Amino acid sequence: MRIPLADILHPDLSGDRLAEIRLLLADLPEPDNDCVVRTRARECTLTKPDRALGRLEDLTGWLAGWQRRHPPRLARVAARVFAANHGMAARGVSAYPAEVTAQMVENFRAGGAAVNQLCETFGVDLRVLALDLDRPTRDFTLDAALSQAEFGEAFDVGLQQAEEGLDLLCLGEMGIGNTTAAAALAYALYGGRPSAWTGPGTGVAGERLSAKRALVQTSVERHVREAEDALDLLRRLGGRELAAIAGAVVGARLRRIPVLLDGFVCTAAAAPLAVIRSDALDHCRIAHVSPEPGHRLLLRRLGQRPLLDMDMRLGEASGAVLAVGLLRAALACHLGMATFTGAGVSTREQ
Amino acid sequence: MRIPLADILHPDLSGDRLAEIRLLLADLPEPDNDCVVRTRARECTLTKPDRALGRLEDLTGWLAGWQRRHPPRLARVAARVFAANHGMAARGVSAYPAEVTAQMVENFRAGGAAVNQLCETFGVDLRVLALDLDRPTRDFTLDAALSQAEFGEAFDVGLQQAEEGLDLLCLGEMGIGNTTAAAALAYALYGGRPSAWTGPGTGVAGERLSAKRALVQTSVERHVREAEDALDLLRRLGGRELAAIAGAVVGARLRRIPVLLDGFVCTAAAAPLAVIRSDALDHCRIAHVSPEPGHRLLLRRLGQRPLLDMDMRLGEASGAVLAVGLLRAALACHLGMATFTGAGVSTREQ
Repeated sequence: MRIPLADILHPDLSGDRLAEIRLLLADLPEPDNDCVVRTRARECTLTKPDRALGRLEDLTGWLAGWQRRHPPRLARVAARVFAANHGMAARGVSAYPAEVTAQMVENFRAGGAAVNQLCETFGVDLRVLALDLDRPTRDFTLDAALSQAEFGEAFDVGLQQAEEGLDLLCLGEMGIGNTTAAAALAYALYGGRPSAWTGPGTGVAGERLSAKRALVQTSVERHVREAEDALDLLRRLGGRELAAIAGAVVGARLRRIPVLLDGFVCTAAAAPLAVIRSDALDHCRIAHVSPEPGHRLLLRRLGQRPLLDMDMRLGEASGAVLAVGLLRAALACHLGMATFTGAGVSTREQ
Repeated sequence: MRIPLADILHPDLSGDRLAEIRLLLADLPEPDNDCVVRTRARECTLTKPDRALGRLEDLTGWLAGWQRRHPPRLARVAARVFAANHGMAARGVSAYPAEVTAQMVENFRAGGAAVNQLCETFGVDLRVLALDLDRPTRDFTLDAALSQAEFGEAFDVGLQQAEEGLDLLCLGEMGIGNTTAAAALAYALYGGRPSAWTGPGTGVAGERLSAKRALVQTSVERHVREAEDALDLLRRLGGRELAAIAGAVVGARLRRIPVLLDGFVCTAAAAPLAVIRSDALDHCRIAHVSPEPGHRLLLRRLGQRPLLDMDMRLGEASGAVLAVGLLRAALACHLGMATFTGAGVSTREQ
């Protein structure tokens, strides 16, 4: 059944986008536990000791529950990479100039980035959404990064990417300066020491890293004081690509599409949803843990164990698409393995 | 250049197989560092921050160094699963009866096991070598598991599997009772508490697990006292599949084929080589860490960080073949990504 987006969007509230999104969050669908149980039941019949495939078995159950289908399916796997620019990037928080965001979007479109190769390797459909690259967000050290209208627009781009019929959605981002936005957002949401949330990103070190940390510390305080809630912090500190990721996560939940989140920025973009409602990311798995120090902290806050730990810190959904290989493996075992009875293999001694 | 196996085997020593293998270990080839350097040089030109693909970049360099080729290649990837039976299995150390070894070999051949599905997913050629399944090793609580001749025969089967022209070799095993052999071997090699090395295997618990631990403790002491060295401990405590794995590891090194080792049993089989010569496993990566408690200890002793941590404890090369997905991804990025110059992307600001 196709759910028209107009129904999802509660158009009567379209004046106050944050209120509208909060309404969406108040009424999220749950997984189909019957499908999880059927997955588990089949796993027990397969020619291996019980639970011997470990987390691969969990992943199959997770897919089945959210897809509301047993066996689950990985025919249509999509990666969506959202790109945007940040006003605060002018303050030298990145090792790369801001024009790299647009250049990398061209590179994605030409097939030259890491994520292109990974999508080809694991059979994933890639789309890159460039969000007003010529309009960076406002510098959050001075003002809220996005207005309500701007935030809503970016959120909707993400929401629309959770297309009916997708079996799995990998999310990622590109935006020079956005590990600073992610660090600021995580610090605003969870507190702690700002330096613990703020790392090298694309590779800043020394005085530049110190400046990045100071910027996170000083700019967050005011926004925390003035923000209505976690979603409003996302609007104030995040960029368009972070808003779009949050939108895609919500859209995927509404359409019961399981989601693989990529690294630090992507996880930070989704975190406000979990602050508002602790089970809001139950349909998401964190594909990998980045060496960016804030990521491990964030995973602990979210109670999530990453699927991979490969020291990758590229973004652009690279870790998420890499983890698709694990899901394809899990599903292949679930679908293709013989049962104890079928293969004439003796079961456990009592 | 094809190296005839007769040359490798030093046939003049064929009477004393352990001495012969020690001679092989004394003269192991090294990786080609020039190929590693060329891999690294190309990585630096690709459109990503330096080292942003983390361990994927290391893996590409590792492949290139051992294959002595830049770029490296993954055209011929093989998985070899060695199966054998253990005399001590009659003592009830496994949750499954010993006939399951032969039944699972049939299941591998019929395409019904997990490793079959994983090999199909990641383009890996699978072969299963059943090693005298109707002749279990001697019960090592009473005697050495294998004679020198039996050990040499199994070692040679492994050695022969490292075929000229392979780009990567995944190793695995099947053998009811073999986590007991692996625990005994690891305890014999490294000491510590026998209970720390001995876990549930296919799923024993309670009194049965206590009995397994007691068996490991009491039987190892005598063999440690009587053994010539680590290789002799492998003969005394390991089974034919463990000897074959050690042979395959040595053969792969001689032919410069990089190796992915699977879980606890597979790593334990290779460990005696590292005890004899600390760099003997430099051409090997441990594909995953098993929840079998001894595996993490063993990795620490070997100074190896596993590629995956998926709570898998199946054996049969399942973790090794799963990790092939990571290698394919690493190579796809290395070969397919655009360079900064080619894509017109700005490099780091100075």
